Amino acid sequence: MSLIVQKYGGTSVGNPDRIKNVAARVKKAVKAGDKVVVVVSAMSGETDKLIGLSSAVAENPSDREMDVLLSTGERVTIALLSMALEDIGVKAQSFTGRQCGITTDDSHTKARIKCISSDRLTEALAKGKVAVVAGFQGITENSDVSTLGRGGSDLTAVAVAAAIKADFCDIYTDVDGVYTTDPNIVPKARKLEKISYDEMLEMASLGAKVLQTRSVEFAKKYNVPVRVLSSFQDVPGTLVTKEDKSMEKVVVSGVAYDKNQVKVTLAGLADQPGVASRLFGKISDANVNVDMIIQNASKDGITDISFTVPKTDMKKGLPKIKQAAKAVGCKDVTIDEGICKVSIIGVGMRTHTGVASRMFKALSDEGINIMMISTSEIKVSCVIEEKYTELAVRSLHSAFGLDKA
Amino acid sequence: MSLIVQKYGGTSVGNPDRIKNVAARVKKAVKAGDKVVVVVSAMSGETDKLIGLSSAVAENPSDREMDVLLSTGERVTIALLSMALEDIGVKAQSFTGRQCGITTDDSHTKARIKCISSDRLTEALAKGKVAVVAGFQGITENSDVSTLGRGGSDLTAVAVAAAIKADFCDIYTDVDGVYTTDPNIVPKARKLEKISYDEMLEMASLGAKVLQTRSVEFAKKYNVPVRVLSSFQDVPGTLVTKEDKSMEKVVVSGVAYDKNQVKVTLAGLADQPGVASRLFGKISDANVNVDMIIQNASKDGITDISFTVPKTDMKKGLPKIKQAAKAVGCKDVTIDEGICKVSIIGVGMRTHTGVASRMFKALSDEGINIMMISTSEIKVSCVIEEKYTELAVRSLHSAFGLDKA
Repeated sequence: MSLIVQKYGGTSVGNPDRIKNVAARVKKAVKAGDKVVVVVSAMSGETDKLIGLSSAVAENPSDREMDVLLSTGERVTIALLSMALEDIGVKAQSFTGRQCGITTDDSHTKARIKCISSDRLTEALAKGKVAVVAGFQGITENSDVSTLGRGGSDLTAVAVAAAIKADFCDIYTDVDGVYTTDPNIVPKARKLEKISYDEMLEMASLGAKVLQTRSVEFAKKYNVPVRVLSSFQDVPGTLVTKEDKSMEKVVVSGVAYDKNQVKVTLAGLADQPGVASRLFGKISDANVNVDMIIQNASKDGITDISFTVPKTDMKKGLPKIKQAAKAVGCKDVTIDEGICKVSIIGVGMRTHTGVASRMFKALSDEGINIMMISTSEIKVSCVIEEKYTELAVRSLHSAFGLDKA
Repeated sequence: MSLIVQKYGGTSVGNPDRIKNVAARVKKAVKAGDKVVVVVSAMSGETDKLIGLSSAVAENPSDREMDVLLSTGERVTIALLSMALEDIGVKAQSFTGRQCGITTDDSHTKARIKCISSDRLTEALAKGKVAVVAGFQGITENSDVSTLGRGGSDLTAVAVAAAIKADFCDIYTDVDGVYTTDPNIVPKARKLEKISYDEMLEMASLGAKVLQTRSVEFAKKYNVPVRVLSSFQDVPGTLVTKEDKSMEKVVVSGVAYDKNQVKVTLAGLADQPGVASRLFGKISDANVNVDMIIQNASKDGITDISFTVPKTDMKKGLPKIKQAAKAVGCKDVTIDEGICKVSIIGVGMRTHTGVASRMFKALSDEGINIMMISTSEIKVSCVIEEKYTELAVRSLHSAFGLDKA
């Protein structure tokens, strides 16, 4: 008898039949004696439909109204799933973000959870009900509707699991676990039985789309055991958990790549103290996420700065970047969209040396040029030309022995 | 410079272009110096789509979850209209039922408004914003989402107008006013310049679909001047207002009909005190609206009772009616769906006599049999066979001189 949070994404609740399937799966857990909270996303396609409507009425819809609009998708799903559960004899009650007590800050469309007061949820569970919670949404202290950003339902699930001290937070997806790399690119990719929060965090933020980054941060902070499972098959998934000794033996646990990056180069900047600080201060004020930054050696007091930005931030971001560049006297902004970031990840790097050079060698053996490099304690990332993505991922996967069972 | 509540129905906001049209119309009022609250319904088709989804997942969806589901429709519209307004330079802010402070009782799917705390609304207006309010919905004291029943957006508009003491509550519809009868049946039907609350109430409850009944009751109670206007043409509409002397001169102001009625007959009931009371007590407990009731003369201590019930209440209602019938020892329940109620309405009836008999004569002249009769101070209704509906309406319209300009 466990207390479990189950999260189902948009594909898993994409039509009435799939919603009934989810209801049947929840019923199984209830019959087995578990207490269950279900967190759901909008039915697949709904969010895009709503975004389409917003673009049809306004060029730059305000973030506050966007949140009111998008939050309706999950509300539809919680009502339908609750009905489907009651229809098969399982007591259920739906909870909007507000009813679930999820309070966020007021950065609309990418709000951060400040606290959860889960009294109503706990009350429903105590009454033997399944609680069906709308993912992705919360409420600001001002009582406005907020949303947590793409993939925010993962965060809702983990946050609720932390709040009610659930035994497990099970994330049901259309993949059946976390793999050493993308199996679409490397057929020999293997499913990991478990992975540490830190590794998962790097995987998530580097473009492996299994779990939303912030949900992993949250899980790590509150030590929530997260299982990544398939919503369509009954097979063991991957447990995301605290680092243990066995994990350190493996140097590299996974290879990730991220094509959602643009390289921005500002040429002809004065090489003076304070220039970079002013530049990136302004860009960050505009809510644009800058990832890797490189500054070239200065010549005649003039230097170039390159950095990467998510493609998805560029529509709103580019005008702000240009403003910021102008403000620090930059003459020339160039954009390179044809790039990809490939990365190797593993907690084993903390105790092994020479990992980065093995990576550079594997890439150079294939004639792939490295444009930018960044490292952390447990990962090395290289920006390369986008056309080499698959080749790079495959050679790194074999170079670090991940092809072997 | 007036304070105006404008309400737009589903057809008026049925697609992005129509939403932009509404935005343009609101902008005109703002430019003219008015302070505007806009109440909107779900985009036409949305509510039916959501109902379709609910039937696909459950046979008898619970009312609470139905409200969570249906309330999303209006939320989509308020977000889109606010975006469209901001896009053309009009400051706007959306309000859900909750944010608008609409508290209801907890009879889900047909909740009644208990109070409105319009502070946030007033605050937004004071800041020069247009307040865009989700019609049809509120929140229970338990903090659950509730809806006000079909046509509930009219009620929201009138209730908000009462709460903020608006100068006018303008209901924009796909007709351009209130007519003496349905122009689809009687081409000579004339638009009324004004009509009293009581007459409108009878018209609304008798099936003229222009305004929801409860919204008219509310308007009467709080003396809110309501204008029925076209959302597509700029022509004068009909003012619904307090009764005045001029109105009494007209004996009959309108002819209404209602095909959404079913006649239920319970045969073989004991003619004893308390039987009818127990019967209708049980039916009313089941939230089924009974309209006209006839009890036949008793024979050998046995009698029949007939009554009418809205067709839309029958799916849920019939099992309850059968239970209630059984409980009072009734052997036989028969249903007649082929009926129609035609009615004449006019405050002038209070001061004129012989109106009912003129109605009966007009019907009998056409050979139409009257099955049930009910009267109030300002209306006479007859239940007839459904196939005579159009004939009856036309002959009553001429018999009471409404054909003349």
